[in-house]
Amino acid sequence: MQPGLRTVQAELETVLQTICRRAVRTTVAGRTDAGVHARGQVAHADLPSGTARDPLLLRRLNGMLSSDVRIQRVGPAAPGFDARYSALSRTYRYRVADRPDLVDPLRRVDTLACSRPLDVCAMTEATAGLLGLHDFAAYCKRRPGATTVRELQQLDWQRAGNGVVVATVRADAFCRSMVRSLVGALLSVGTGRRPVDWPASLLALDARAPHLDVAPARGLVLERVDYPPDAELLARQGITRATRGRETG
Amino acid sequence: MQPGLRTVQAELETVLQTICRRAVRTTVAGRTDAGVHARGQVAHADLPSGTARDPLLLRRLNGMLSSDVRIQRVGPAAPGFDARYSALSRTYRYRVADRPDLVDPLRRVDTLACSRPLDVCAMTEATAGLLGLHDFAAYCKRRPGATTVRELQQLDWQRAGNGVVVATVRADAFCRSMVRSLVGALLSVGTGRRPVDWPASLLALDARAPHLDVAPARGLVLERVDYPPDAELLARQGITRATRGRETG
Repeated sequence: MQPGLRTVQAELETVLQTICRRAVRTTVAGRTDAGVHARGQVAHADLPSGTARDPLLLRRLNGMLSSDVRIQRVGPAAPGFDARYSALSRTYRYRVADRPDLVDPLRRVDTLACSRPLDVCAMTEATAGLLGLHDFAAYCKRRPGATTVRELQQLDWQRAGNGVVVATVRADAFCRSMVRSLVGALLSVGTGRRPVDWPASLLALDARAPHLDVAPARGLVLERVDYPPDAELLARQGITRATRGRETG
Repeated sequence: MQPGLRTVQAELETVLQTICRRAVRTTVAGRTDAGVHARGQVAHADLPSGTARDPLLLRRLNGMLSSDVRIQRVGPAAPGFDARYSALSRTYRYRVADRPDLVDPLRRVDTLACSRPLDVCAMTEATAGLLGLHDFAAYCKRRPGATTVRELQQLDWQRAGNGVVVATVRADAFCRSMVRSLVGALLSVGTGRRPVDWPASLLALDARAPHLDVAPARGLVLERVDYPPDAELLARQGITRATRGRETG
């Protein structure tokens, strides 16, 4: 929700309100910056039981949403499910076309064009020191009182079959601008502007790193959100609320 | 070129004119309908020798073109090369998402959303009678004096790993609206509205088939254009000009 701005959440709530004939609040797994897309966003809401059981609900929602917002699935949530606090991890992809012949205008909404060739091996080497549980203060926009400790579970760089360079980034949750800051630091290694050990060295800082280029929103997509088995949903909520309070996303 | 309308060819010629400081005419391999994209379009032009040899030409072109038009490669053409008349074949892809969970807003520029599930086996069966050299009058917008005989070299339907249904269509050349008419006929088999033998039965007609739905431009992309080895470029031009005259595309 961004007062006065078009957001996916606002569009969804407007459509739900029309269908349910009352205001509906949604809770989403990950709040993305402007220009960042989500292919695997998850949201929950309390709906009137008639609407929730309507077998045509998915079709009705998609019929009213604009074509750049699509619902893939709807269903009843298990007890203890919270789209945001029950999540185990968020997985993002970042796509970069680093040669003119890889730049595909049809993918320009989710692919960054980079005019210098990327050294994927160097970027891969640079990720090693970043994985695991760390204070990512250097990579975050800090909010007062909120922790910047996160578990970076995966950070792979691959050159896909078609030549496009793709980063897969998974963590329990991300602070504000964390994914784009991590990718930005690694891109500066990939283009040779920074040494391989520079991104990990920033973890020693206890505040946002200066001279750190945040990667453009353009190439970033929230691909999926993972949850524990149903029996663990409520316990997971408790753990998240205790450790990250109101800061996850 | 479409007077008064934005086209890829007009954009390209405007940029070439600025770089070359004189008017430049381009010849393109395939002219696509409005809303159809091209990922593998080929064009040739006569450039001043200084411009043609400029190692930064590719970068200069892409620097001036808008972001939805990209040049992947530039290079000198072999003797006898003509982007349009030397071509051996054009290959198009048509993408269809036939379930709500397959509809990806990030691919909406090149993927048709179809609300009914497609029977890929039935569509594959229906292509058998279409392959080869035929008069595709039923599938073309006829132009006076021009032949509608074409060689349909490939027409495959596959459900890709992600579930999206993809048609690959290759012919020596296509008449106007031929790809979208073929796909339209096969989609009506895929949704069960027409029997499997209906698309091939239309080949008996000597004029455009009535009741034939042309598939929307949305899902169609010209993926590649193939040429013979350099030594055969000129001979191929001669064959094309003799058989199809001014009608190829």
